Amino acid sequence: VNKNNHGIKAGALFFALAAATVAAHAQPQRRGIPVEPLANGPFDYVTGEPQKIRVRVLTRGLEKPWSLAFLPDGGMLITERPGRVRLFRNGKLEPEPLAGVPAVRFTLIGGLYDVKLHPDFARNRYVYLTYAKPTSETSDVLTVARATFDGRALNDLQEIFVAEGATGQSRLLFAPDGKLHVSVFGEPREIAQDPMDLSGKTLRLNDDGTVPNDNPFVGEKGYRPEIYTIGHRSPEGMVWHNGKIWETEMGPNGGDEVNVLEAGKNYGWPYVSLGRSYPGPYQRNGFHLDGMTDPVVSWVPSISTTGMTFYTGDKLAAWKGNLFVGGVRYGEIPGTGSLSRIVFNDKMEELRREALLTDLHQRIRDVREGPDELLYVLTDETDGALLRIEPAE
Amino acid sequence: VNKNNHGIKAGALFFALAAATVAAHAQPQRRGIPVEPLANGPFDYVTGEPQKIRVRVLTRGLEKPWSLAFLPDGGMLITERPGRVRLFRNGKLEPEPLAGVPAVRFTLIGGLYDVKLHPDFARNRYVYLTYAKPTSETSDVLTVARATFDGRALNDLQEIFVAEGATGQSRLLFAPDGKLHVSVFGEPREIAQDPMDLSGKTLRLNDDGTVPNDNPFVGEKGYRPEIYTIGHRSPEGMVWHNGKIWETEMGPNGGDEVNVLEAGKNYGWPYVSLGRSYPGPYQRNGFHLDGMTDPVVSWVPSISTTGMTFYTGDKLAAWKGNLFVGGVRYGEIPGTGSLSRIVFNDKMEELRREALLTDLHQRIRDVREGPDELLYVLTDETDGALLRIEPAE
Repeated sequence: VNKNNHGIKAGALFFALAAATVAAHAQPQRRGIPVEPLANGPFDYVTGEPQKIRVRVLTRGLEKPWSLAFLPDGGMLITERPGRVRLFRNGKLEPEPLAGVPAVRFTLIGGLYDVKLHPDFARNRYVYLTYAKPTSETSDVLTVARATFDGRALNDLQEIFVAEGATGQSRLLFAPDGKLHVSVFGEPREIAQDPMDLSGKTLRLNDDGTVPNDNPFVGEKGYRPEIYTIGHRSPEGMVWHNGKIWETEMGPNGGDEVNVLEAGKNYGWPYVSLGRSYPGPYQRNGFHLDGMTDPVVSWVPSISTTGMTFYTGDKLAAWKGNLFVGGVRYGEIPGTGSLSRIVFNDKMEELRREALLTDLHQRIRDVREGPDELLYVLTDETDGALLRIEPAE
Repeated sequence: VNKNNHGIKAGALFFALAAATVAAHAQPQRRGIPVEPLANGPFDYVTGEPQKIRVRVLTRGLEKPWSLAFLPDGGMLITERPGRVRLFRNGKLEPEPLAGVPAVRFTLIGGLYDVKLHPDFARNRYVYLTYAKPTSETSDVLTVARATFDGRALNDLQEIFVAEGATGQSRLLFAPDGKLHVSVFGEPREIAQDPMDLSGKTLRLNDDGTVPNDNPFVGEKGYRPEIYTIGHRSPEGMVWHNGKIWETEMGPNGGDEVNVLEAGKNYGWPYVSLGRSYPGPYQRNGFHLDGMTDPVVSWVPSISTTGMTFYTGDKLAAWKGNLFVGGVRYGEIPGTGSLSRIVFNDKMEELRREALLTDLHQRIRDVREGPDELLYVLTDETDGALLRIEPAE
């Protein structure tokens, strides 16, 4: 992180820090020590419950991986932000990326984001992608596309939804009712509160990209009918758990959040936050505003939250029901990524948490439970890795 | 941390965790790796500004050190919580503790706390101590005593203030007006809001322990006249900076705070907090309540804040004006102590922060700027250490 960045204000700082992070790859340092590349491992830890774990490096050679999807045949699809989908199968990364992936605009924070299989993938072979579709050399638009996967390539790619005016990271989720939820980045300024703008919202779509009739604002004047929830900043994680949609979002200078999403509700960005703005003042209305929904979990300072998963398996027995949230950075400092583990009571109120994998000094981009009841983790590095967390002994 | 602790509720959990931490000394583990003792160092880091630092281990062999005071002759006094004052002089720890230290009740969190020199120490040789004075085998009372220091022993120790009904950690501060500020632990339940109880308050006294006539509640019916501020939970750091008193306090399950103290104000514990209670629910009134002062800095989850200092020197040039706050633990996990460095804008609003010394896996109990403009750090371990942070290269 270069000293010159520190005079830069507000939104610009976000990009300055992204730039600094990229610079840190060229000349990697963490708190003074040149960052050694991720060691081969495996790495053994005992966590707080206690749960003994072994962390294995399954593959490297992924460039800024963002998301993964488990295939029914045991393999997985992994997105790389520069605009590739990779296939990990039979314990190794296929050298050639999938054909048929759309062009993306790869920037400091933009490119190809999420990949999701249709709930009925076994029959229809549908794969969904979100990405920054280039509209010029200097602009892009958030797009959701659907293609069929034949085991080697994506075919018949079709843009099913273009989020006009929106850009930035985006997560996909299929709810059990078959609807497709799409999260949309919510900067700058108050765009996340504008009900006629898709930015800073989560959207609810049919699986073909059309708008369901039972969306909360359908027929309401002054509201985009795609909107499911309002007032989000940087919603990069979204999962279904215990009958609800859980979402992570990143604050600027503190105020990362986990929210439980309910149709039509407002989550407050940028009016309220537990964190501060980049230039220092708290957000306009401080910590709480009636009519806006408080977070269930928060981080101050920011860990720069990314993907999330609830662990529901039995193999990591002491972790059953725990929430895992990736983080790419503590405060502003490279080399301080983490995987948060959060324990809840039976009302889903936080009891305690810990930060895992901090000794690896890697940016943690996504975390998923595999069909084998093990946890899979992506490191958001130029030489990114796929890790697996297993029970030890 | 033992799984059995996790069913224990509320205040009891605090002590259960303290016990778990003690147990961790017997069988040290951090996230699965047996904790190696602190290495010899020195340890080199580059921090975020950037500032290159070298961390030296000046001495070990301190048992649960809590606070230190710099002597005009270049030595320093260091308190050990079991009830000793040690002298560090000419680069080494004197083997014999000072004579004349009062008996304390050493418990999982109690014992001897702060040591402060009188502002006119060069003339009067007064040293002040706060400690848990035993009142029976199972009880104690927070006491402030004053003694004279002859270079080898404390003499003529006199209890100048006994905080009837109060117990737990306590920090001392002399304000520039010569008044002695005393912080008082504020559990259990709503005792911190009871204006007739000294617990959960900061107090303002004359240097002989009597009550100044200009205290905010003097003459106000239903208020103890010693009270300066109200509504604190675990105020373990207190310093003077930029014309104000700055204080750190530890939340239970999130909600550690830095506050700026002003006469007569209420800081909200236990009605409001950015953190949760041990059993899970947020505090009764959530994040904010009109009439209660919001924190300037907070941590969610808790780092278990301890001592603090503003760095005002020139030797660590990039850190000038930064606030340093010790932490003994992230969440509930042993081996996760840290030293937070917080950068402010010119309105003293936070711009950013980082966690230092995390790789050492030590509990950080106190941090001070020495007369040599270097930072001194105490590790709160059974084999505790005094560290010095110097500029590197």
